[in-house]
Amino acid sequence: STSFDFDNDSHRRFDPLRNTWVLCSPHRTNRPWQGQQEKPSTTTLPTYGSECYLCPGNMRAQGDRNPVYDSTYVFENDFAAVKVEQPDFPLTQPNQEDIEAGDKSSLLLRAEGVRGKCYVICFNPAHNTTLAELLAHALLPVISAWKSIYSSLAQRAAQGEPFRYVQIFENKGDTMGCSNPHPHGQVWCTDSIPTEPSTELTNMTAYKTQHGTCLLCDYAALESSAEGKPRVVLENEDWIVVCEWWATWPFQTLLLPKRHIPSLLDLTEEETASFADILSRLTCRYDNLFETSFPYSMGIHQAPLKGKGTACEEDGCDIAHLHVHFYPPLLRSATVRKFLVGFEMMGEVQRDLTPEMAAARLRACDEVHYKNKVV
Amino acid sequence: STSFDFDNDSHRRFDPLRNTWVLCSPHRTNRPWQGQQEKPSTTTLPTYGSECYLCPGNMRAQGDRNPVYDSTYVFENDFAAVKVEQPDFPLTQPNQEDIEAGDKSSLLLRAEGVRGKCYVICFNPAHNTTLAELLAHALLPVISAWKSIYSSLAQRAAQGEPFRYVQIFENKGDTMGCSNPHPHGQVWCTDSIPTEPSTELTNMTAYKTQHGTCLLCDYAALESSAEGKPRVVLENEDWIVVCEWWATWPFQTLLLPKRHIPSLLDLTEEETASFADILSRLTCRYDNLFETSFPYSMGIHQAPLKGKGTACEEDGCDIAHLHVHFYPPLLRSATVRKFLVGFEMMGEVQRDLTPEMAAARLRACDEVHYKNKVV
Ligand SMILES: O=P(O)(O)O[C@H]1O[C@H](CO)[C@@H](O)[C@H](O)[C@H]1O
Ligand SMILES: O=P(O)(O)O[C@H]1O[C@H](CO)[C@@H](O)[C@H](O)[C@H]1O
Repeated sequence: STSFDFDNDSHRRFDPLRNTWVLCSPHRTNRPWQGQQEKPSTTTLPTYGSECYLCPGNMRAQGDRNPVYDSTYVFENDFAAVKVEQPDFPLTQPNQEDIEAGDKSSLLLRAEGVRGKCYVICFNPAHNTTLAELLAHALLPVISAWKSIYSSLAQRAAQGEPFRYVQIFENKGDTMGCSNPHPHGQVWCTDSIPTEPSTELTNMTAYKTQHGTCLLCDYAALESSAEGKPRVVLENEDWIVVCEWWATWPFQTLLLPKRHIPSLLDLTEEETASFADILSRLTCRYDNLFETSFPYSMGIHQAPLKGKGTACEEDGCDIAHLHVHFYPPLLRSATVRKFLVGFEMMGEVQRDLTPEMAAARLRACDEVHYKNKVV
Repeated sequence: STSFDFDNDSHRRFDPLRNTWVLCSPHRTNRPWQGQQEKPSTTTLPTYGSECYLCPGNMRAQGDRNPVYDSTYVFENDFAAVKVEQPDFPLTQPNQEDIEAGDKSSLLLRAEGVRGKCYVICFNPAHNTTLAELLAHALLPVISAWKSIYSSLAQRAAQGEPFRYVQIFENKGDTMGCSNPHPHGQVWCTDSIPTEPSTELTNMTAYKTQHGTCLLCDYAALESSAEGKPRVVLENEDWIVVCEWWATWPFQTLLLPKRHIPSLLDLTEEETASFADILSRLTCRYDNLFETSFPYSMGIHQAPLKGKGTACEEDGCDIAHLHVHFYPPLLRSATVRKFLVGFEMMGEVQRDLTPEMAAARLRACDEVHYKNKVV
């Protein structure tokens, strides 16, 4: 009998961060695609969009006007999903008496109020650029904005304000629900730890208890020393980018520091510069893969905020290992995406090409943006 | 101070089936939408499509020809994600010696081979119909096909073949990655229980251990006896459809039998007929909501298959409570969908309108299909 072939035989891989599985069916990359095609990205945007509510000097939907900013610009989201001003609603607790009397609503209809704040970050004044087209030094003000939002919320949390987790993310491209091409990201801060980072922290805590080490420190070391580094896309002194073993989306990557860094505030100046470097190189490779403005959602996971007077251990701050997830939907070209639908929603997430195949494709991409190539 | 208003204030609701949370920001329904618009569904398809690989009598992609079927027709997927014929690959086990010697790969790069079978079910010979447009009696052959696939795989599993879970699902509409409008669904059977049903079974087992009852029996009873039935969309003697308390997608519903029924094979003849009735009425209301062929992914969760010689308890078969999930993406109209992206992927799933608002909208829909209305 022949031996198992990861490039051809169906298998599932375990995701230790989320305690779930991913079904991988590599032979399926051969199937023809007759379904929906995405619109390829527009390449003819002006530097300034007179109708854009994010451009410098323009009026926003609720009547505020942007300053004529010349670097990165942050404002509070005009349509915030969470706000600070609302009545209290503490978590529904199961009521033993009711339950015994046959009323299970306290058990099955649980809720809690959520307070918080939402920000929008315009990465750059130019309407027609993206992180992928900016050079590393132009990403420094973006990282700096992320740091200062995190730091000011951390200070307010320490004084007792209702802030517990800072979720930084970017939706890039129509396909990812982005409604304005002006380069921007968001920050949603909530008074509870959202499901995803909370699950990760739970699994990282269990790993640490069992093995005494940090899951992501171990994982970064494993990938950067693996023979042939099959899942590594790129590396610099401080950071590594991998198509992780358990990646779900076709070209999903995980960007993480090699040493244990809980949050953005723990980065040295050198690590900040090398973070800008690797972010810029990764996003540029993404654009070059299909010569299109590559859509994705990206998000930063890091330490929760410490509450007033609580210790770091209670808050899981030292368990956290800063990392960035990139979830891009494209599969075959600028117009053919992967759909995570039926089986993926109801059964288990499923991918066609293996993470090793994806990493090889991304390693083969150039680091000069295709739009800037002299032909 | 005013009191907490679930129709206006941000809160999160607990999903006891998946042990996760959903952020609900009802005030956000007011925000303008300037992003991607979906193509509304085509309404001018012929009854027979000469190019359609699912129509009766036509040739499929790999060269097989469909019979001239006149009811529901099942065949094995020509591009199956899982197959029976492949080498063994048992689950990677953590190797204590390696781990102590510093090699964590057995811990962090875990995988197992997955065997199984994939089927396609053509619901009806007509190229231009859908479950929503078919009347209840025309859904009986569909339910019957689901039953016979489940039953034949169950028999083969009992004889030791590598089948453990039967995932029945339908992707409807371009937006949901469906590449052919011919009414059809799929069945993927695997030799392990996929992540989603496995998570549900774990949580249902924990609930039963703690409270002595079935989570979904309790939930069906709670919703059908709640004052004003705010989350009930429709009901018949045997079944209930709710926009569940913890629903993620804007018009997500959960369809379940009121009594404890582990699998499709446990339905009486009456329950089968009332299942067809409620399926047809629900999908028709969905189409009427925005007067469009309403896209969704739907999936059936039920009992895992019993292995050779194992007892039912070991296999979780009696814990399972048959139910159908509908995950439709549309939010505001035939062309504006909800994107579960950035915050939803990285933080926590988020919805705008509450499940109670969604249920009220669906209750207000007619049960005569808009295309069949005499004006
Ligand atoms: O099998 P189909 O219909 O070609 O493909 C569709 O459903 C599958 C199962 O949910 C998904 O994996 C695919 O991404 C989707 O496009
Ligand atoms: O806030 P935006 O950019 O208008 O909206 C986008 O991002 C949000 C956060 O991921 C999502 O909830 C929306 O569905 C999406 O369209």
